[in-house]
Amino acid sequence: METIFSETHKRRNARSELYGGELVEPFERPSRAEYIVERVRSVRLGPVNPPDDFGMQPILAVHDADFVAFLQSVWTEWQAAGFKGEAIPSVWPARRTSTHIPKHIDGLLGYYALASETSISDGTWDAAYASAQVALTGAERLRQGARSVFSLCRPPGHHAALDMYGGYCFLNNAAIAAQHLLDNGAERVAILDVDFHHGNGTQDIFYEREDVLFLSLHGDPMDAFPYYLGHADETGKGAGEGFNVNYPLPPGTDFVTWRKSLQDAIEKVAAYGPEVLIISLGVDTFETDPISFFKLKSADFITYGADIAALKLPALFVMEGGYDIAEIGVNAVNVLEGFENGG
Amino acid sequence: METIFSETHKRRNARSELYGGELVEPFERPSRAEYIVERVRSVRLGPVNPPDDFGMQPILAVHDADFVAFLQSVWTEWQAAGFKGEAIPSVWPARRTSTHIPKHIDGLLGYYALASETSISDGTWDAAYASAQVALTGAERLRQGARSVFSLCRPPGHHAALDMYGGYCFLNNAAIAAQHLLDNGAERVAILDVDFHHGNGTQDIFYEREDVLFLSLHGDPMDAFPYYLGHADETGKGAGEGFNVNYPLPPGTDFVTWRKSLQDAIEKVAAYGPEVLIISLGVDTFETDPISFFKLKSADFITYGADIAALKLPALFVMEGGYDIAEIGVNAVNVLEGFENGG
Ligand SMILES: [Zn+2]
Ligand SMILES: [Zn+2]
Repeated sequence: METIFSETHKRRNARSELYGGELVEPFERPSRAEYIVERVRSVRLGPVNPPDDFGMQPILAVHDADFVAFLQSVWTEWQAAGFKGEAIPSVWPARRTSTHIPKHIDGLLGYYALASETSISDGTWDAAYASAQVALTGAERLRQGARSVFSLCRPPGHHAALDMYGGYCFLNNAAIAAQHLLDNGAERVAILDVDFHHGNGTQDIFYEREDVLFLSLHGDPMDAFPYYLGHADETGKGAGEGFNVNYPLPPGTDFVTWRKSLQDAIEKVAAYGPEVLIISLGVDTFETDPISFFKLKSADFITYGADIAALKLPALFVMEGGYDIAEIGVNAVNVLEGFENGG
Repeated sequence: METIFSETHKRRNARSELYGGELVEPFERPSRAEYIVERVRSVRLGPVNPPDDFGMQPILAVHDADFVAFLQSVWTEWQAAGFKGEAIPSVWPARRTSTHIPKHIDGLLGYYALASETSISDGTWDAAYASAQVALTGAERLRQGARSVFSLCRPPGHHAALDMYGGYCFLNNAAIAAQHLLDNGAERVAILDVDFHHGNGTQDIFYEREDVLFLSLHGDPMDAFPYYLGHADETGKGAGEGFNVNYPLPPGTDFVTWRKSLQDAIEKVAAYGPEVLIISLGVDTFETDPISFFKLKSADFITYGADIAALKLPALFVMEGGYDIAEIGVNAVNVLEGFENGG
């Protein structure tokens, strides 16, 4: 399996994350991607290549243009306002507020954020842009006939919504890849999100559409980030009704239980009959992940990679989360090897 | 003029405020109230007395019961979750999220917050409760015939909404006082908010009601906290249509311009004919306030105190913001002296 990877991910290197009332070193840090690409190389998964540049158009096909412009300018504007730390929102449009969009960068930041653990600093846009190109290049490889590709995206993308960033995500890489495929001949794409956290951004982007089936297995939002989306009763809206499937799972969920939901999701993908399957691959389901509560073991990642392969669909793996950094490479590549050897 | 004041305000003593991407010493700190009460005493404004205790009922007459229960338990729950800092939300119900209320304290915190500069720590509830009693005691004095009372509340209240805290506010002292008067014979109460910031919480609480006329002069939310509420087009809803009046004013606004809006507000109060006027008294309109952008000078506070006195209404002054701490006592008491000597 070919891996697409950009060294530009290193430009995403915030020094602070708001966590538990303190500013700590971010859980989402550059070494994550380094561990994964090292593992890809050490097991000889396949070639590792840089992305092509598809420009802004496929990004703007998914995200709000003003939001994208904001991401490009926020760090400069934040500094110009005289603030000394990284850009962290401290106020947001809460319940029953107006729809006017504020001018001041402090208010604009909160408007476009859905969480504040994700500090913005110099280089964040460059890395987010490159990460989207990594996903797009993977999608393009599938169009050219590849059976599977690994887009080693960093920063991750699945929490990024139409016009909001947060949860370490800025641009929704998986959604951008899906839209690119739809805009180039595909009629139906399925996105299977196996990250520990609900893919609220992806859900948001495709919630009213039937050309993308979105399925997410994740920690119950009653107990886990992103808290305010990811319930089982969110099934899509309008033309999208029935094309959004959430599997919220409780604290302590082990692989046996998790795999039952995966099997159900796989059956729904098969029934949908997409031309392509995109997997939002987060490995924060791992038992020792520091910010999650599932109990998957490293061998389980091989097993479920094979389960997914049984669908016999062209597959684009898009890297999302995983914060037990020392094990992230093994677990992510286990899924890819399980897929290659299974099915 | 009698001042009502509780030493319990000192229990509100957070060590951190999220500002400009850093955790800094809070602008809203105990010394604010100390400077004010010292000034009250040094000019011999009148007696300074502690509040009576009206219990929870008048608080629950204004705020959501689950929200109030949350305020009482959040610090204990936050510590029990193992977080090491003060309670600061890092995620919130952004646009297009579900209405389910999460269980985990991290999610619950964001659900009930409208901003994250306001860290919650030990004693916050005690101080907020006492501050509400200070306002209630002032309202009760008016019922007993006083012409004017100064409720030296701390923490402030006007940003606290039906079920959200933020902007240094937890319980809406002015709203609680207004509701207490309405529940004890008054038919109409006007609340005039002269704090630099929009009184979004007070607006939220009374937005659909005609028995409270709310008027707020403040920094245009396009440029100033709370950013997402306080526009001129917010005029009330349903039965409350026409009973909410916002005067957003641009950066650099001086007293001449500010006073024109005040005069308009005063005319509207007179036309409404309330039994009581409550003034949300913030003095962060002062020219050297560190987080605001109006240009009032100390003498202007005397002038507008007299302007308000011309209404010849029983008046309850409820302390809100003001962050040029060395001058806060002079400016706040200038309004009260202007009121007493004017009219
Ligand atoms: Zn995750
Ligand atoms: Zn203020």
